[in-house]
Amino acid sequence: MPTEPMSDDERAIRDLIATWMTASMAGGHETVLGLMTDDVVFMVPGREPFGKEAFATALKATGPRLIDGSADIAELKVLGDWAWLRCRLKVTIAPPGGATTTRSGYTLTIVRKEADGKWRLARDANLLA
Amino acid sequence: MPTEPMSDDERAIRDLIATWMTASMAGGHETVLGLMTDDVVFMVPGREPFGKEAFATALKATGPRLIDGSADIAELKVLGDWAWLRCRLKVTIAPPGGATTTRSGYTLTIVRKEADGKWRLARDANLLA
Repeated sequence: MPTEPMSDDERAIRDLIATWMTASMAGGHETVLGLMTDDVVFMVPGREPFGKEAFATALKATGPRLIDGSADIAELKVLGDWAWLRCRLKVTIAPPGGATTTRSGYTLTIVRKEADGKWRLARDANLLA
Repeated sequence: MPTEPMSDDERAIRDLIATWMTASMAGGHETVLGLMTDDVVFMVPGREPFGKEAFATALKATGPRLIDGSADIAELKVLGDWAWLRCRLKVTIAPPGGATTTRSGYTLTIVRKEADGKWRLARDANLLA
């Protein structure tokens, strides 16, 4: 893997993750929503899986704000129009009126290349405690 | 999806998950270890990802014992020699000398068909809190 040239798909998926982080920090809600499939499923510890609508509602609420973050891709495997990747995520969050906190952990993510040729998040398991 | 006939691969993956649960409950350590790839990566909240060796060590330790469990496959997508699946997991665990507890939650799992034609767990994100 270390010396293989990066495929266009791999580059597009890395761009997707980078754009996701940048748009999340900048409050670009529509951009973020455009980076996921309509049938996306998000999984986090301690609650039921949720989809795009619940994600959009949470974005619009005045919840904790992502003020800094990085997603380092530890592994990425392209399988045709699908791919899976593991990221090490580090986020600094500012709760409304509270002190900022930094947390890190891993994600396992399934992405999909849709009919328009764009890669989007399809399933995401986020293990940040 | 509801009316499509089940492929041999899908059936084999469902058998893998069922065998995993049965062997885990029966204390079939070698069986369980044989159901994962050598480069498997397990992810759980609150700790670093770990591999087969750490999994084997934990199995041999007298830790919490899985006395009952079910893994209902909510989604399964086969992509050639790879597949991803989401399971709803429910486990009843008996800590040494303690009261049994039941927990449930979701997993996102990547499985792989290896050279011997057998499907094995390759990556697993377990969101049970």
